[in-house]
Amino acid sequence: MRVQVPLEKAYRLINHGPATLVTSKADGRANVMAAAWVSPLDSALVSAVISNDSLTREFIERSGEFALSLPTVGLVDAVYRSGSLSGRDGDKFAAAGLATFPASKVAAPLIEGCVGWLECRLRDESRAREKYDLLIADVVAAWADATVYRDGQWRFEGQPDKRTLHHVSKGVFLASGEVVEASTD
Amino acid sequence: MRVQVPLEKAYRLINHGPATLVTSKADGRANVMAAAWVSPLDSALVSAVISNDSLTREFIERSGEFALSLPTVGLVDAVYRSGSLSGRDGDKFAAAGLATFPASKVAAPLIEGCVGWLECRLRDESRAREKYDLLIADVVAAWADATVYRDGQWRFEGQPDKRTLHHVSKGVFLASGEVVEASTD
Repeated sequence: MRVQVPLEKAYRLINHGPATLVTSKADGRANVMAAAWVSPLDSALVSAVISNDSLTREFIERSGEFALSLPTVGLVDAVYRSGSLSGRDGDKFAAAGLATFPASKVAAPLIEGCVGWLECRLRDESRAREKYDLLIADVVAAWADATVYRDGQWRFEGQPDKRTLHHVSKGVFLASGEVVEASTD
Repeated sequence: MRVQVPLEKAYRLINHGPATLVTSKADGRANVMAAAWVSPLDSALVSAVISNDSLTREFIERSGEFALSLPTVGLVDAVYRSGSLSGRDGDKFAAAGLATFPASKVAAPLIEGCVGWLECRLRDESRAREKYDLLIADVVAAWADATVYRDGQWRFEGQPDKRTLHHVSKGVFLASGEVVEASTD
C-alpha cells in the first residue's frame, strides 16, 4: 500500500543513503537509470549527480523534471541492468524488466516494486549542473510503501526482499541492515 | 590496520551512503559533528551539507579543511552525542568519548575506532555554500580499516560491530547489511 509522505519529511526516505532509480520523460519517451550519488539538501530538496552524456540528463534538462524510485533487494538484477545499459539503445524498462505507474505531479513514471518515490522538479542551478553534473531539485511529492515505512522511519524487519540497496561497486550492493538505536540518556 | 585508499577510489568509502563524523580544527581548537548528508561528486570529490550556524562550519571556513570519519555500530552512542551537543559548550570529543589521531594532510583530527577516513580540502564554491549550506571539497587523502575494507569493497562479514551506520532519524540508524550481488550475465 502506497502512502503519501509529507514534504517536510521527504528527506527521511533517502536519509540512510540508498541507491536510486532515476526516471525521466521528454517528448513522450521515458528512461530509467541507476544513481547512487543522491543526497538530501533540505527537507524537500535533493541533489543528484547525473552524467552530462546520459540520455537521462538530456530528458531532465528538456522537461525540468525527474523522479527517484528506491529499489529493493528483490529488484537487484533490474537495478544492475538499468545502470549498465543505455536508453539510447532501446526501451530500458523492458530490457530491465521494470513496470511503471504514473506520478502525481511530474511526467516521469514511478517504478513498481520499489518502496519509496520522490517526484522532483529541477532548479535552475547552472553552475552546479555544468561544473559538477550536480542537479538540485525540489521534491514536489513523496510516497512510501506503508508495509516497510511507518511513522517516518524505515522498518524492514521480516521483509528482507523489501530492504533498500546501498551501492558498493558494479553489480555489488549492501542491503539495509537492522535498526541500531543510540542510548539517548 | 589502516591502509591508504588510492584517491581514484576514495568515493568507494562513502558510495553506500554511510553516516559520517565531520572533524575540523581552527586556531588550535578541534570539533566534531555528525553529518548524514554527505555524497561523492566524483572519484576524489565530495559534497557535505553543514549548517551555517554550527561551530564546525565556522572552523571549516576559517581553515579551508575538514575530515570525514566513518563511525561504526560500536560507536553509535558517541555518534548520537556528537550530533546532539554543540562544540560551543565544551570539548565534544571528551563529552562523546571519542579519541583521535592526526591526519596526514589536514589539521583536522581523524577519529579512532572508525573504519574509513577522508581528508578534505574545501573548494571555493560560494553559491552552493551560501544558498544550500553545501560544501564541495577535494579528497586529499583516504584511509580504511583493512579488516573490513578490501579490494575496494566493504566486507563486514563476521564483524558486526564494525559495520557502518546509515542515519534514519534522531538516534536511530540502520546498520550496513549483507552483500547483495546482481546477476551480471
